[in-house]
Amino acid sequence: MTTPPEIAEALAQAIAAAAEVRGTTSPNPAVGAAILDSAGAIVGVGATQPPGGPHAEVMALADAGARAQGGTAVVTLEPCNHTGRTGPCSQALFDAGIQRVFYAQADPFPAAAGGAEFLALKGVEVHFLDVKIPTLQPWLNAVKSERPNVTLKFASTLDGFAAATDGSSQWITGAAARAFVHEDRSRRDAIIVGTGTALADNPSLTARSGDRLYPRQPRRVVVGKREIGAGNLQRLGFEQYPGIPEALKALWEEGCRDVLIEGGPTLAAAALRMDVVDNIQAYVAPALLGAGRSILNWPQETSISEIMRFETSAVQQLDNDVLIEMQRKGL
Amino acid sequence: MTTPPEIAEALAQAIAAAAEVRGTTSPNPAVGAAILDSAGAIVGVGATQPPGGPHAEVMALADAGARAQGGTAVVTLEPCNHTGRTGPCSQALFDAGIQRVFYAQADPFPAAAGGAEFLALKGVEVHFLDVKIPTLQPWLNAVKSERPNVTLKFASTLDGFAAATDGSSQWITGAAARAFVHEDRSRRDAIIVGTGTALADNPSLTARSGDRLYPRQPRRVVVGKREIGAGNLQRLGFEQYPGIPEALKALWEEGCRDVLIEGGPTLAAAALRMDVVDNIQAYVAPALLGAGRSILNWPQETSISEIMRFETSAVQQLDNDVLIEMQRKGL
Repeated sequence: MTTPPEIAEALAQAIAAAAEVRGTTSPNPAVGAAILDSAGAIVGVGATQPPGGPHAEVMALADAGARAQGGTAVVTLEPCNHTGRTGPCSQALFDAGIQRVFYAQADPFPAAAGGAEFLALKGVEVHFLDVKIPTLQPWLNAVKSERPNVTLKFASTLDGFAAATDGSSQWITGAAARAFVHEDRSRRDAIIVGTGTALADNPSLTARSGDRLYPRQPRRVVVGKREIGAGNLQRLGFEQYPGIPEALKALWEEGCRDVLIEGGPTLAAAALRMDVVDNIQAYVAPALLGAGRSILNWPQETSISEIMRFETSAVQQLDNDVLIEMQRKGL
Repeated sequence: MTTPPEIAEALAQAIAAAAEVRGTTSPNPAVGAAILDSAGAIVGVGATQPPGGPHAEVMALADAGARAQGGTAVVTLEPCNHTGRTGPCSQALFDAGIQRVFYAQADPFPAAAGGAEFLALKGVEVHFLDVKIPTLQPWLNAVKSERPNVTLKFASTLDGFAAATDGSSQWITGAAARAFVHEDRSRRDAIIVGTGTALADNPSLTARSGDRLYPRQPRRVVVGKREIGAGNLQRLGFEQYPGIPEALKALWEEGCRDVLIEGGPTLAAAALRMDVVDNIQAYVAPALLGAGRSILNWPQETSISEIMRFETSAVQQLDNDVLIEMQRKGL
């Protein structure tokens, strides 16, 4: 069936609501929901609250109140059928008198799946909307692979350098790109750097807007065996793991679903060689250095057959710079 | 004054007409013109014909016929006031009874300038439209610098490699990007490569769509002192110059205004170090090699203060690849 326009509009509002809570819901997915009354008017919108809080459907139902009776729910992910810290959303939708449910993504999590089936058995009309929800992709991939989704982020010149030969690098990209990085950090569960970066750059790994911290900060994670002495990380607190597998295992177990590797070149190369890079964010400055320090510290010679190809998922200009976002093929 | 909507629409048609003849007009600029009748309806459109043929205004007037009387002309470049192989366009507009002229770019060429003044003195209402015409940029820059406008083109991975360590490189970018390159070649006056590329790759330097040649082919130019033996270039014909300055001087004198340097890394680095690169076309594949042959063969170490910065003028996705177009700052 063709999606009715009021359902498409409700889905757009649900997606927007989900995008607003991205980064606040792990280990749960950032879901959005909209409720239409029996006449097709949007009467409630909601999104997943932090862990332990209500899910999107419950928020949207609360927003709609009695107008949900006989109405329609549009959700970015199949309503859960699982009693965890909150009751199942499929039951909540049924109890509110919802007669039709549209959802955009099947729940891949065995313990929570079955919501669509439950509702159909209760006589609710259930429709699947074949639409990709980018906000959900890291969570879906994490649940499938049983480790956090890994995004590798780097900033470089057009010729692939993160710094000049002498190590100087501030700043390759401009203010708009740097502001975008910080907003993005505030949406991630953790930021991971190697000991090389931690020792050389004394990073804070905070998410800032100007001089102010975003309300939500990612976990600060260092990978490698060298000791990190006094500095910003010691001051702010951080976790350290000997290698990437240990870090990803611990972060997964502690509820992280969406983590960012910010470098440097040795850690980035190690993550690629371990094949744990699911997404790449390449901030490319329209500049050339000619020679310098590569974004990847690669230990061996290459042939073109070894090229690591990704799929371009989004391209945007950030003032003078370009952000190219990619994902693993078939993700 | 605010540009009236019928003038904006006429300008859009003039720009589109100019874009169609890009690459066929050197040493003249690719100009477009539109004629509106006295009621404001577009009654004629035209663009510059190959050298010796009519200019855009004359083509548009011919298209409009008697309906030009009492009408308006909209031109992407100030009408010329110069009798060369053709008569001055300002005179032609006046003779056709045009009462208003809008033009988007002043003529920077001393011998041809003065068209706006001539028309104003004849009592024609003349308006300048403050709009950048990208199609004209290479020609304007060439006339200003008295050498052809130089666009440096390269295709690379995200980490700045044009080939793997062992030299293998086919293909880094995909079919859509390669097709775009060929269409673009058909719009350039010359394609320049170094002797290294000529000897290693046996290139044809032709502009092809599938197996067919575009009707218009750029000049094939090799820079460097090594002899080019039997191969595609010998078969198709080419010019050779010992260095970039000699090549640009000769090409300028022979009427080239818009040339493309396609590599390899030694020639690209030399052009950047001579500061003759006006535009860059970077075709970036969403792929990483880790190690390989850089797009630039740079002879020395660098510090961040030596970074060569450009301005991003356009970004587009070509299937899975990204084309970033840049220009010299302030161009």
